[in-house]
Amino acid sequence: MKALEVNMDREQIYSSLAQKNDRRIVLLVMDGVGGIPNKEGKTALEAAHTHNLDLLAQRSSCGLTVPVLPGITPGSGPAHFSLFGYDPIKYNVGRGILEALGLDVSVGPQDMTARGNFCSLQGDVVTDRRAGRISTETNGQLISLLKEKIREIDGVGVELTSGKEHRFVLKLTHPKLSDRLGDADPQVEGEKVRYAEPLEQDEHTLFTARIVKSFMERVREVLKDSHPANGVLLRGFTLPPRIPSMADLFQLRPAAIANYPMYRGLAKLVGMTVLPTGPEVEDEMATLRREWDRYDYFFIHVKKTDSYGEDGNFENKKSVIEKVDCLIPEILSLKPDVFAITGDHSTPCRMKGHSWHPNPFLLFSPYVFAGACQRFTERECAKGILGIFPSVDILPFLMANALKLKKYGA
Amino acid sequence: MKALEVNMDREQIYSSLAQKNDRRIVLLVMDGVGGIPNKEGKTALEAAHTHNLDLLAQRSSCGLTVPVLPGITPGSGPAHFSLFGYDPIKYNVGRGILEALGLDVSVGPQDMTARGNFCSLQGDVVTDRRAGRISTETNGQLISLLKEKIREIDGVGVELTSGKEHRFVLKLTHPKLSDRLGDADPQVEGEKVRYAEPLEQDEHTLFTARIVKSFMERVREVLKDSHPANGVLLRGFTLPPRIPSMADLFQLRPAAIANYPMYRGLAKLVGMTVLPTGPEVEDEMATLRREWDRYDYFFIHVKKTDSYGEDGNFENKKSVIEKVDCLIPEILSLKPDVFAITGDHSTPCRMKGHSWHPNPFLLFSPYVFAGACQRFTERECAKGILGIFPSVDILPFLMANALKLKKYGA
Repeated sequence: MKALEVNMDREQIYSSLAQKNDRRIVLLVMDGVGGIPNKEGKTALEAAHTHNLDLLAQRSSCGLTVPVLPGITPGSGPAHFSLFGYDPIKYNVGRGILEALGLDVSVGPQDMTARGNFCSLQGDVVTDRRAGRISTETNGQLISLLKEKIREIDGVGVELTSGKEHRFVLKLTHPKLSDRLGDADPQVEGEKVRYAEPLEQDEHTLFTARIVKSFMERVREVLKDSHPANGVLLRGFTLPPRIPSMADLFQLRPAAIANYPMYRGLAKLVGMTVLPTGPEVEDEMATLRREWDRYDYFFIHVKKTDSYGEDGNFENKKSVIEKVDCLIPEILSLKPDVFAITGDHSTPCRMKGHSWHPNPFLLFSPYVFAGACQRFTERECAKGILGIFPSVDILPFLMANALKLKKYGA
Repeated sequence: MKALEVNMDREQIYSSLAQKNDRRIVLLVMDGVGGIPNKEGKTALEAAHTHNLDLLAQRSSCGLTVPVLPGITPGSGPAHFSLFGYDPIKYNVGRGILEALGLDVSVGPQDMTARGNFCSLQGDVVTDRRAGRISTETNGQLISLLKEKIREIDGVGVELTSGKEHRFVLKLTHPKLSDRLGDADPQVEGEKVRYAEPLEQDEHTLFTARIVKSFMERVREVLKDSHPANGVLLRGFTLPPRIPSMADLFQLRPAAIANYPMYRGLAKLVGMTVLPTGPEVEDEMATLRREWDRYDYFFIHVKKTDSYGEDGNFENKKSVIEKVDCLIPEILSLKPDVFAITGDHSTPCRMKGHSWHPNPFLLFSPYVFAGACQRFTERECAKGILGIFPSVDILPFLMANALKLKKYGA
């Protein structure tokens, strides 16, 4: 007799059971769609007229999904990793890389990114960490100038991308970079300039720290006559984490249809093909129709439910939901084998930000239990047969309903 | 590219997100409040008239909580650790310490406690492990005598506390004690006296075993003419576990209002300030009012729902519930930002003891979904939007609703 070896984690188990077939999965994510009741006692989903979503909910298995852990309000990064079937604790991607993705900077395995600020210096002292919040236009001009003057440092590629106001992203490219660096930012004004402190003493870290220091000095040289922005601060140095692709893990051919850079970037990190599309949800639908035959998993991202939630604009959030509702028949007409709709996290208008509340979830396939829920709302989905479950379980449910998971054990 | 480091457990994640603010949380625990239907088909909660609890349930997010694991009937220790946000498997406090807490013995980091029995000896043989269940009064007299004669042994402080009948608690105090000792109890009558066997061979364990043996010999000397109690047995040697405080873990200023020693002790173990209070729930309310401005988390414990459950006294359990119901408006008048009510475990009258049944749970805050439940009962809470969840998630929910948890990831 031998001892049992129990050393597979959940990711390995799902991966070992994944199998290819031609069935198509559509995951429609309405970012931040969930909310809490407004003064009239209704959420945006409850107030919206959603004939198609409601009909579909009546024919689906429904539930509520928890993005990370109970009570935890997630950022977009962990919330989407969870939706894609990746443990959001295990794959917690750093701030620098998310900032880069948000500015549509492509990030490969040899790219180290950091968040940058333009700042004001007097001698060696940081007098304003945001250089008086210079305009986005000025930022663009400074970045153009720097790009022209600093293309590489000792063989390390340097790429700069403008953000809003005083913000930018730095990307360094070289096979021997390390991100074990402290922030090159004194954090408080009136303190001296700080360079990135190496947190390890290995060759790569010392090399990277030296490059970062050279970069900051070159910037000061180029901007020596610039005012008020004559220096930079750098925070959150991040190399891309080693993430297995959805193709490798789940045997899928996944495609992303998203019109905001952050979500295209997140999809790319897990190896999805990111399809070109336009700014409106109708453009996303056109992309879906066009590419329908070429993939077996489509992630469709709708941003504006979240944006209006963040603005506290209940009426507009409701309108976006109604707009998405009108597109449901079109998605159904493509006859997806599995069609799921949910949010990545909730964004209640009353809170003007992300929240911890679970997301309504709907799963439509030939293998569901209909009839428990009348509408696609938080409170109706709470009555659903799927109950409350972690978002990271969504992918296994999609795979199961597409018959893409083999039997476990004999 | 770098490998991801995955070394945060759930406690560390919540801890890393905890932030202070002035919002106040009240957790009202009705010990053992949940039950199962009696012959008329009603639980004590269902049979009770609970106007205020029911109104509150209608305005709250409700659910059912599982103290430890499905099907597991917990003792008070693990059930409360779970309520306080501590994994009850990770922090399983030993029996000796719980016995000590139950007798209001204060336990610090250098204190080792054990449960004691007076027993009857003939020569070296244990003839009655409970010394004929001597009266609590006789016990008190013997303990007084022993306290007078044995104050310390080789620099180790000795403290004895009477329990009921033949039971007492021994506390040894010294910086170099070890609790890696077997029970000093042969378990069966007719066997020879057994001393505490060292389970390790290190200096501290051998030292402690020697002290315990000396103690037992000294007792026999003092009680040599006593009858029937002329010896002692000792079980469950326990040093206090190293438990991070709620202040450290969750950035809370927590206070406990409890009138039974066991619960005051449990609260103290997690670093709560234990407030002086009186024997009745009305006294507890007065304490809450008096201390309202000084803490941001209040644990209020009501014991008698459990006591009457243990007695199988359905009518009295119902009455206690109705008494607590009358106090709800007073708690609400203090305007807690978050107010939750639940039990630590169920104590069905028909079972006259703890059970594994999940506890009704109610959470009232500005961020809830009202309307799913009509009453604060087991069956109505089962319809709640929170579903069935582990009790250890209660604290994160309370923190989230008090806006005391930062966003996770960007």
